Amino acid sequence: MPLRINPARLRADFDALARIGAAGVGVHRPALSANHLAARAWLRERILAAGLEFRQDAAGNHSGILRAASPAARTLLLGSHTDSVPHGGRFDGALGVLAALEALRTVQDASLELPVHLEAIDFTDEEGALVGLLGSRALTGALTPGELAQPRGGLAALRDGFARAGITDPLGAARPPGSLAGFLELHIEQGPRLIEAGADIGIVSAIVGIGSFRLAFGGRADHAGTTPMHARRDAGRGAAEFMVRARGLVTRDFPGCVINFGRAAFEPGAYNIVPERAELALEFRSPVQAELDALEAALLGEARRVAAACHLELEAVKQGCVAPAPCAPEARAAFAAAADDLGLRHIPLVSGAGHDTQALAAVCPAGMIFIPSTGGSHNPGEFAEWEACVNGANVLLGAAIGWLDR
Amino acid sequence: MPLRINPARLRADFDALARIGAAGVGVHRPALSANHLAARAWLRERILAAGLEFRQDAAGNHSGILRAASPAARTLLLGSHTDSVPHGGRFDGALGVLAALEALRTVQDASLELPVHLEAIDFTDEEGALVGLLGSRALTGALTPGELAQPRGGLAALRDGFARAGITDPLGAARPPGSLAGFLELHIEQGPRLIEAGADIGIVSAIVGIGSFRLAFGGRADHAGTTPMHARRDAGRGAAEFMVRARGLVTRDFPGCVINFGRAAFEPGAYNIVPERAELALEFRSPVQAELDALEAALLGEARRVAAACHLELEAVKQGCVAPAPCAPEARAAFAAAADDLGLRHIPLVSGAGHDTQALAAVCPAGMIFIPSTGGSHNPGEFAEWEACVNGANVLLGAAIGWLDR
Repeated sequence: MPLRINPARLRADFDALARIGAAGVGVHRPALSANHLAARAWLRERILAAGLEFRQDAAGNHSGILRAASPAARTLLLGSHTDSVPHGGRFDGALGVLAALEALRTVQDASLELPVHLEAIDFTDEEGALVGLLGSRALTGALTPGELAQPRGGLAALRDGFARAGITDPLGAARPPGSLAGFLELHIEQGPRLIEAGADIGIVSAIVGIGSFRLAFGGRADHAGTTPMHARRDAGRGAAEFMVRARGLVTRDFPGCVINFGRAAFEPGAYNIVPERAELALEFRSPVQAELDALEAALLGEARRVAAACHLELEAVKQGCVAPAPCAPEARAAFAAAADDLGLRHIPLVSGAGHDTQALAAVCPAGMIFIPSTGGSHNPGEFAEWEACVNGANVLLGAAIGWLDR
Repeated sequence: MPLRINPARLRADFDALARIGAAGVGVHRPALSANHLAARAWLRERILAAGLEFRQDAAGNHSGILRAASPAARTLLLGSHTDSVPHGGRFDGALGVLAALEALRTVQDASLELPVHLEAIDFTDEEGALVGLLGSRALTGALTPGELAQPRGGLAALRDGFARAGITDPLGAARPPGSLAGFLELHIEQGPRLIEAGADIGIVSAIVGIGSFRLAFGGRADHAGTTPMHARRDAGRGAAEFMVRARGLVTRDFPGCVINFGRAAFEPGAYNIVPERAELALEFRSPVQAELDALEAALLGEARRVAAACHLELEAVKQGCVAPAPCAPEARAAFAAAADDLGLRHIPLVSGAGHDTQALAAVCPAGMIFIPSTGGSHNPGEFAEWEACVNGANVLLGAAIGWLDR
């Protein structure tokens, strides 16, 4: 009979945290906002009330620690984040932090012998109100001064947030290489695949990599009445043809990938003028680097063919990219064994979104699980059944204990 | 041997007018701007210098008149406009006004007996800096107080222009029904068809009607990483599919029509969010009302089918429409006979753009001809060979004389 968390204790914490920064049925806790700092002050109290060691590092990451006997032991991290997107949901991140805390309390209650320190961690700014994965990337040493000089949320917001949280040197949060035994994260799926598959637990095999381009088709602005169809160099036609063909290409030849055109803009933008320029925001994702590269080549090739066929120029500007992060086999095995012990049905899943696990995967064996959720992602209506949350917390606990036994 | 205009006299006028408001190789003479009023002051001098009667009506239209013997005679109007789009070309409109003036001088020189008054007219604001076809629609009684209250160029621009030109009651320019014998206009084609066909003269069979809609596809904003392709309600996909299919429908089933998507906008407009709303500016044109109606029905039907197939909502808001204006058979016959007499090759053409002829066609037999031009439309680079201009002016003259002989 595997050890199990205390569902009532976890539920009381979950409901209490959901009230901090509550906005409708969701929460509004952008990183280092007053709401977020209130949530962290509450979390600190809960960590201390549990008799755990509290730690706040130079990047503001909040931790509760259960020490191994040997001070020289490495650390197994469990956790996620308490910040939310503006007007987000109450499960995204928060559930993973509280399940980690509950796992530590359960291990403590059972007086298990610890070959590694256990640390439940709340990473700063996972959602990117300031930088994105700020806390987890600071901890792994991946954060750079350059990123802090040009944060996506703007320099003023970063300075204000750091001042409110007392953060002066986030790069100082980097841990010594080799000090981490691993990282395990619980999160809601924010997609429909577990429910479609009737599974209890999704064991993440990899977190997708992301490619993005600003594409611009260039033609000629002509009078939309006097210019025959065959004589036009219609930039909008190229953009539309490419969007249709690119979607077909991905669903046909890259079934494990997704593509999105989030933005389209035609210039000069009048009813009676043939568009001279059509700009598209293109993003595509794959869990495998080689596939991401092949998809990029296929999409740019298709864009060039469409441009040539429509007598248009093509401009493709890379907007940055994120490498795929495969999850560690030992983490996946620990999650699978824990789910099996609990009689829960699990399937492998790719994570289509970024998570702190992807930062940790660069420096230690890292893995994550999803539980079924509805209501999409990054909105107040996201929802997971309480039973699924408890299942997830028990699998997280079981995987951590399995890790201790290795 | 048909009567011919004096090419040198026409050329001197053309070059002189092109210098007024010159901007690069083109002209900048928006309606009732200082440049435009300077052009009209010059035109008035030329009319008076030719010994013609000068008239400025309540809408600011400038005319030179050669009277018939009988004061009760009706009037055959010849003309076009001297205003330009901002930074437009020196042929659009100006050539038609000067060719009309030159036709009157040639008829006067030949001392022909006139069964109708001949009037060379320069219509106010054909291009729509203020209202569009303002002068010609005022003259035919089609202009309404409502349009003057909400001018497309803005109320301030209209008031300022009227004040500069001394216009106080443009509706007072309406002529008595039955006072007009007809209207003939010469214009550059602003499209490639005459040159492609190797023809000297295009005899306009009709001026197209225009339908326009603001279309919006509505779906759901989803995370572009976590939402599988098959589970999306992607508004941008609907917009792209529709643009491609609509273009195919027009080129395949409506070869005499044109279609344009001048604007596209996706919301919320982020790389990583599936578009919730995709708005398109749709415009289509046909020379025949029944075809315009059939095309509208076919396009809206296709949009509904795409929306249904992509699980999207569809919103279609009509943005106003312009009825097609067929040219009068007697005007077309007069132009054809004149071109034949001069040994010029002529073909029938549809006008894809609006012209003063379309306003006049509502109240009297009206027709227009095109001469070959290059460099497109509404830009400084528009160009017509001088020989083509002289051909056009001679056909205008010949058609007017043919009209007198009817």
